Amino acid sequence: MDVKAKLENVTLVLSRPKYPGNVGSVARCARNFGIDRIMVVGSNSLDPEAMKQMSTHFAADIVEKIIYSKDLDEALSPFRHIVGTTARKGSARGPFLSPRDAAPHLAEMSANNTIAMLFGPEDAGLTNEEIRRCHTVVTIPTADAFRSLNLSHAAMILCYELFVCSAETPQAFTPAQATSRELEGMFGQIKELLLEIGFLNPENPDYWMTHLRRLLFRIRLTSREVKIIRGICRQLSWYLDQKNPDRKNA
Amino acid sequence: MDVKAKLENVTLVLSRPKYPGNVGSVARCARNFGIDRIMVVGSNSLDPEAMKQMSTHFAADIVEKIIYSKDLDEALSPFRHIVGTTARKGSARGPFLSPRDAAPHLAEMSANNTIAMLFGPEDAGLTNEEIRRCHTVVTIPTADAFRSLNLSHAAMILCYELFVCSAETPQAFTPAQATSRELEGMFGQIKELLLEIGFLNPENPDYWMTHLRRLLFRIRLTSREVKIIRGICRQLSWYLDQKNPDRKNA
Repeated sequence: MDVKAKLENVTLVLSRPKYPGNVGSVARCARNFGIDRIMVVGSNSLDPEAMKQMSTHFAADIVEKIIYSKDLDEALSPFRHIVGTTARKGSARGPFLSPRDAAPHLAEMSANNTIAMLFGPEDAGLTNEEIRRCHTVVTIPTADAFRSLNLSHAAMILCYELFVCSAETPQAFTPAQATSRELEGMFGQIKELLLEIGFLNPENPDYWMTHLRRLLFRIRLTSREVKIIRGICRQLSWYLDQKNPDRKNA
Repeated sequence: MDVKAKLENVTLVLSRPKYPGNVGSVARCARNFGIDRIMVVGSNSLDPEAMKQMSTHFAADIVEKIIYSKDLDEALSPFRHIVGTTARKGSARGPFLSPRDAAPHLAEMSANNTIAMLFGPEDAGLTNEEIRRCHTVVTIPTADAFRSLNLSHAAMILCYELFVCSAETPQAFTPAQATSRELEGMFGQIKELLLEIGFLNPENPDYWMTHLRRLLFRIRLTSREVKIIRGICRQLSWYLDQKNPDRKNA
């Protein structure tokens, strides 16, 4: 079975986890569903023994190989698809998929693309800023509007759905997506231009940028397409320079 | 929605659990999926505070209302259907269903029948004798033949599958997509601008436009999103006018 091969491209990225036991539990979940890699961002002082107590010996090697990072941007930049899980459904945070609805697409993509499954800290979850980094935002359905899932239980559901779906999905070819670094570079360039031409309000540039990001995430851009869009932006910038020689000094 | 009503008939029965934290975690899972009742069989001395620490206040009342029983026969006797979960697939223990395959039947049945979902102790799981009491035996699929699931994670998957299956109603909401007319208007506007700024070759403007159209079709834009993109184009056009008053007469 090639399930193993597919999920090798999946990394669980835990942003600012508070309790080492939860990280250990996540490692155990990961192992059960053929995922070997965990990154921890913004929490450097988690007790390894407390993690291993919950990972059990069965997943202790995953705990030992955890990659620690201080900066989320840096941590996410090599990935070609980022899935965030959130319970809070603010209007700026969606659109939201259920894990089951997201799984087929993720399973297909994971064959040829590195995927980060991103989880926020136990108490507050992912911030709006973190959610904006995600190509796909998933919400686990629960009985009540106010939900309170343990971090490792949320990870369990995501890993489980992806695993079950991967085991059923025949390998389809999905072209390599642009990396998060490529996309963020493009967004930065677009934002700068839209500020300059007065489309974005400098007081709150992220309002329309969030819509645009969402729209562009949905296209699943390839590296080449990112280059096309950046080429348009560069050309526009060049053209504005021609028309307005004082522009760069403004 | 009648999900709540259906799952009111479901009780999680934990046979000989060793760690109070796990029982608390199970209570939290139960609450998230609309299940309010837990029975604990053969473990009378679990520390309530340790349980509540893991249940959180969110499910503390479930912990308080746990029914303790010494005898499994007695505990199971009122239920109309018993589902056991096991990782060990001895020949005398099956036939085994996946949680997903078992869920539709259980969801349907739970409307009018009390159901016990039975879990064994953390280390050894359900005995052959306990498995024999089960109408349905479920095994959670994992990556390796040797699996090691935390008790509360196993309960999480079972509750989740039953909940999702119970909640499933034909309510697929797809937002209205932009009409072809709206899209073509947008493409025309984009093409004009890209010609003006020199991104498109006037000899063969459709070369890059075809790439862009394909890319934009893939997003399945809504009418509102078409308006956003056209607003950007209009703003850009206005800005170019400011910089180059002769533009329109050119």
